[in-house]
Amino acid sequence: MFDLTLIGIGTGNPDHLTLQAIKAINAADLILIPRKGEGKADLAELRLAICRDVLTNPATRIVEFDLPVRDETILDYKARVEDWHDRIAGVWKAAMGDAAQVALLVWGDPSLYDSTLRIAARLAPDRVQVVPGVTSIHALTAAHGIALNEIGAPFVVTTGRRLRDEGFPLGVDTAVVMLDGECSFQALDPAGLHIWWGGYVGMAEQVIVEGPLAEVGAQIVALRAAERARHGWIMDIYLLRRG
Amino acid sequence: MFDLTLIGIGTGNPDHLTLQAIKAINAADLILIPRKGEGKADLAELRLAICRDVLTNPATRIVEFDLPVRDETILDYKARVEDWHDRIAGVWKAAMGDAAQVALLVWGDPSLYDSTLRIAARLAPDRVQVVPGVTSIHALTAAHGIALNEIGAPFVVTTGRRLRDEGFPLGVDTAVVMLDGECSFQALDPAGLHIWWGGYVGMAEQVIVEGPLAEVGAQIVALRAAERARHGWIMDIYLLRRG
Repeated sequence: MFDLTLIGIGTGNPDHLTLQAIKAINAADLILIPRKGEGKADLAELRLAICRDVLTNPATRIVEFDLPVRDETILDYKARVEDWHDRIAGVWKAAMGDAAQVALLVWGDPSLYDSTLRIAARLAPDRVQVVPGVTSIHALTAAHGIALNEIGAPFVVTTGRRLRDEGFPLGVDTAVVMLDGECSFQALDPAGLHIWWGGYVGMAEQVIVEGPLAEVGAQIVALRAAERARHGWIMDIYLLRRG
Repeated sequence: MFDLTLIGIGTGNPDHLTLQAIKAINAADLILIPRKGEGKADLAELRLAICRDVLTNPATRIVEFDLPVRDETILDYKARVEDWHDRIAGVWKAAMGDAAQVALLVWGDPSLYDSTLRIAARLAPDRVQVVPGVTSIHALTAAHGIALNEIGAPFVVTTGRRLRDEGFPLGVDTAVVMLDGECSFQALDPAGLHIWWGGYVGMAEQVIVEGPLAEVGAQIVALRAAERARHGWIMDIYLLRRG
C-alpha cells in the first residue's frame, strides 16, 4: 500500500522548481534517485543537489538506486524497452521498502516523452499523483524570447526519428523536435525553414542558435558536436518554422 | 531605456510558481497588473494575491492598469486585434513611467497562445526576458495522470476553431485542443476517439472527465455549461487520442 508522486522538476535549472514540487518533495517519506546510468554526469548530481536545497522535512529519506541497463540481447526494440521498464520497476520496488509516500523527480514534465508514468503503472500504487513541470519546449522558447505558435495556429511536437522518416509534419508550419541525437533537420530541404535551436536549455551551460536553416544548419551540427565533446553529453531541442 | 520580463506563472494555482518566477518578481522595479477586462473575476484578483505572497523586495511597485476593450467597429479581425494590441502597448507605456525593470505576469507560459510577447515588441524594450511557466497542457495531463504522447509518437496542439474547420489533425493520433469556447469536439465523428477533458486545471475549482468521446461528450458539454454558469467564466482544455 503506497502512493507514488512523480514530480516534474524542469530542465536542469534548480530555479525551474515550482512551489508545488517543493511541497511534494517535502511530503514524501522516500525519494528515489537514480545513482547512475543516465550517462550525463552534470545531471546525475543535480537531482541530489535539488533535494538538498529544498528539503526541510527531516523524516524524508533519499534512497539512491542503480538504473538497470537495457538488455541488448533482446533484438526487438519494443520488447527490449518493456523488459527494461519491468526491471526498473523491480529495482524501485526493492528500494522503496515499506514507505507509504514515495516520490520520483522527473526532468521537465512527467507527461512529455518520459517513461516514469509507464514504469510506475507496473507497481500498481494506490494512487499516482503528478506534479507538472516546466518543459524543455518552454525553456527553448524562453531562451529565444519567441512565441511557440503563430496567432491561432497549431504546432506539432515530434521526434528526430519521425522528422527523418516522415519529413516536416503535415498541416502545420511549426514543429518542435525532441529526442534527436542526429540533427535530423539535415534530412529536410532547408528552403523556407527557420530554426531556433538550443542545447542545455535553461541550464548554465545553455547555448542557442537561430536563423534560416540553410544558413545556420551546419553551424548547429558543429556546435552540437563540440558541446557534446566538452560536457560528455548533450540534450538539445529545436523549433522549425516555415515561411 | 527599460527591460521587460514576461513571467510565466502557471495556470492559476499559486503553487505553480517557479523559484525563477519568484526571483523575477522580486527583481522588478514595477509589476504591471491588469485591473479588469479579463472577465474572469477569480483570476483578476489572483495575480495580486500571487505578488502579495512572494514579494519581499520593498522597492518593487505594483501598478494596475485597465485593459482596453477591442474596438468592435473595426470589422476585420486581424486589424481589430492589431489595433487592440497597439492600445494595450500604449497603456503599458503610460503606466510604466520611467521604471527600468518592468515585469508582467502571464498565465501558463508566455510562448503558448499568448499575446504578451507581441505587445511587448511594440515598446522596443532594450531586452525582453522570458521566464518559462507550467502550461495548462501539463496541468491537464497531471490532473489525469496520463502521458501526453504515445511512445516516440508526435502530437499536435491546436485550437477549437481549427478542429472545427479542419477536423482531427493529420499525421498524429494525439491532439491537445486549447482556446475552445464551443466544445468543438462535437464536430468530430467520435468513433475511436478517447477524450481527457479538464476545466480550471490546476486550480481548486478543477473538474475533469475522461472516457470514449461517444460516451462522455454530451456529459462534458453539460458540465462545462454548468461550471461556467456557476463561476461566471471557464477555461478548459482537452486531449483527444485515436485508437
